[in-house]
Amino acid sequence: MRNFELPGLPERSDKPRESGITMVMDKGLSLRQAEDLVSVSDEYTDIVKLGFGTSLLTKELNKKLDLYHEAGIKTYFGGTLFEAFIVRDMFDDYRRLVSNLKMEYVEVSDGSLQMPHEKKCHYIKELSKEFTVLSEVGSKEAGLIIRPNLWISMMSKEIECGAWKVIAESRESGTVGIYRPNGNAHSALVNKILKNIPNDKILWEAPNKSQQAWFISLLGPNVNLGNIAPDDVIPLETLRIGLRGDTFKQFIPLKH
Amino acid sequence: MRNFELPGLPERSDKPRESGITMVMDKGLSLRQAEDLVSVSDEYTDIVKLGFGTSLLTKELNKKLDLYHEAGIKTYFGGTLFEAFIVRDMFDDYRRLVSNLKMEYVEVSDGSLQMPHEKKCHYIKELSKEFTVLSEVGSKEAGLIIRPNLWISMMSKEIECGAWKVIAESRESGTVGIYRPNGNAHSALVNKILKNIPNDKILWEAPNKSQQAWFISLLGPNVNLGNIAPDDVIPLETLRIGLRGDTFKQFIPLKH
Amino acid sequence: MRNFELPGLPERSDKPRESGITMVMDKGLSLRQAEDLVSVSDEYTDIVKLGFGTSLLTKELNKKLDLYHEAGIKTYFGGTLFEAFIVRDMFDDYRRLVSNLKMEYVEVSDGSLQMPHEKKCHYIKELSKEFTVLSEVGSKEAGLIIRPNLWISMMSKEIECGAWKVIAESRESGTVGIYRPNGNAHSALVNKILKNIPNDKILWEAPNKSQQAWFISLLGPNVNLGNIAPDDVIPLETLRIGLRGDTFKQFIPLKH
Repeated sequence: MRNFELPGLPERSDKPRESGITMVMDKGLSLRQAEDLVSVSDEYTDIVKLGFGTSLLTKELNKKLDLYHEAGIKTYFGGTLFEAFIVRDMFDDYRRLVSNLKMEYVEVSDGSLQMPHEKKCHYIKELSKEFTVLSEVGSKEAGLIIRPNLWISMMSKEIECGAWKVIAESRESGTVGIYRPNGNAHSALVNKILKNIPNDKILWEAPNKSQQAWFISLLGPNVNLGNIAPDDVIPLETLRIGLRGDTFKQFIPLKH
Repeated sequence: MRNFELPGLPERSDKPRESGITMVMDKGLSLRQAEDLVSVSDEYTDIVKLGFGTSLLTKELNKKLDLYHEAGIKTYFGGTLFEAFIVRDMFDDYRRLVSNLKMEYVEVSDGSLQMPHEKKCHYIKELSKEFTVLSEVGSKEAGLIIRPNLWISMMSKEIECGAWKVIAESRESGTVGIYRPNGNAHSALVNKILKNIPNDKILWEAPNKSQQAWFISLLGPNVNLGNIAPDDVIPLETLRIGLRGDTFKQFIPLKH
Repeated sequence: MRNFELPGLPERSDKPRESGITMVMDKGLSLRQAEDLVSVSDEYTDIVKLGFGTSLLTKELNKKLDLYHEAGIKTYFGGTLFEAFIVRDMFDDYRRLVSNLKMEYVEVSDGSLQMPHEKKCHYIKELSKEFTVLSEVGSKEAGLIIRPNLWISMMSKEIECGAWKVIAESRESGTVGIYRPNGNAHSALVNKILKNIPNDKILWEAPNKSQQAWFISLLGPNVNLGNIAPDDVIPLETLRIGLRGDTFKQFIPLKH
């Protein structure tokens, strides 16, 4: 739905999207705050992540999940919750929990917990029988550098094992993983990854506006972006179609 | 309305204000979030800018415009939307759009789009026949320095052509135009401008608290400030009357 | 209330808490925004500070105070408002105001106003006859260093005079008082304070996530933390129980 005519805007994909996905980070929104998000941004919100362990504590969780579900928004628990179950040897409990809550998506990550990569792949395989799996690559630890070849081999392996998308880690702060401590992207790393992994299979965490603009400049309006704050969904959508200063020039229609 | 008596506070102007204006940036608030803003800050909010191109996408736009209108708050589209119409040769469509939505204010800018200054002035003249015009000076480009003399000549020319106020650009981030990349004001530039342009004719974009405090220290409680986040309207109002640490000392009543 | 079972989480204190307190900064929330906070975070919110002078201006103040009261949340005015009354020689008016509004807590501070320490102690003594007093130590001025011995002697004196807790100042920005301008804690200062003042008597202002994680790492899940943004209460609670990356490793259960 658009409020007026403006020709020559870049084409955007429609829901349900395979590319051009916006994944939003919900860090414990109240039911009414979640309604606000849905009321204004449902068309542009594909997935909501209930960040890290917040879903243990947030009241009216079931109502919130229903709200998102009815708005055509998929939901999943942040990977840290998955790891909290794994470290307690409670994989089956986790699977049951996700299933009981009728959530369709699930994240497999090892950002806080060391685990052999075969084990991670095993979880991806198991969970992908029942759910749509997003697997996350990249440590949460500041300063820890993973070599490009390792990023690539982990990503391909995880896709092979059944991951629908692989998430490139940045944390909520946007200062680790694919970003330098100052928030700038490791562009050489990103380019090496893109030579080996199809762009549509990657969901780039990009919490800050400059990171979102950087990926849109590199990969166009229909790049998959994640860890978007609830109030930034509409602003991100304007970046995607060239209606904000940062990407205005990129999307000026040719014939005018 | 004040909840209790506190004598000796600096005098504040009342709505409708010619100086001491607070312009708020709405980046796609839901209708209910806009109601929240109005319910607590209507007395202190003079103008709401529907930031950049967000108004194309935000649902219930008409209801939101009505809400602001009934609360005595003027509204206008961010300049980037104006430029998106201009780059498509759709000036008349833009004018009709603003008119059909019964918006009384309009921004003319060239932050993302190069245009000869005579052309910008032409738009200001044309639009000021029908609307109250705010024109914006200063590029959105980081690192691009405009010489003080050019700021001054553009500002005077635009006021001459009918601009009600000229806006000194900072972007939402507060790091370009009148600010250095670290967010500090270019004080020499600001002072040169103030020697040549009446302060009341300028609306300073000042998204960050330190920038707001800096301008209040320099120009008093009734300086015009813009790009204020919705949740910062009340905090800004306390800065204006010396009820926050940053400006407390400036406004201690003399006789006590 | 927790949405599912997860064994081996660190023990958290319950309301009304003497330690493990979360103090939230309300900078002028609308009534409905305050309802959002209460609806999702009432169990984890012990105290709400109506920041600096915002309570003079916020509409529906009485309804908001009632809302917090019914949710078992204590409220008090930011210290800057206290100082604004003191600088006007209106101590009795301040006391009456707090009393008339049926607020049970009150802050005594000297962050913006120089006052002899005996005078500050006098106010603490007087107010503690009627209210629960929080007194704040540490200047709001950037770069101003208070020697550790002075922190300690002021804190002990203020507790002796009747302060229920002493607040270690950081401002909303987290860059003064117990923090360096870059936001890192002055750890030597903190450690010296802790050798002399019982940890449970101190409420550490810690507006940023890294500061919250730092104090939880040092002092465990039940450290008193303040100046928490409303939307950060749930995220902070996950930090306290090891369900966020930053404190995950600290709280891995031993036997698994």
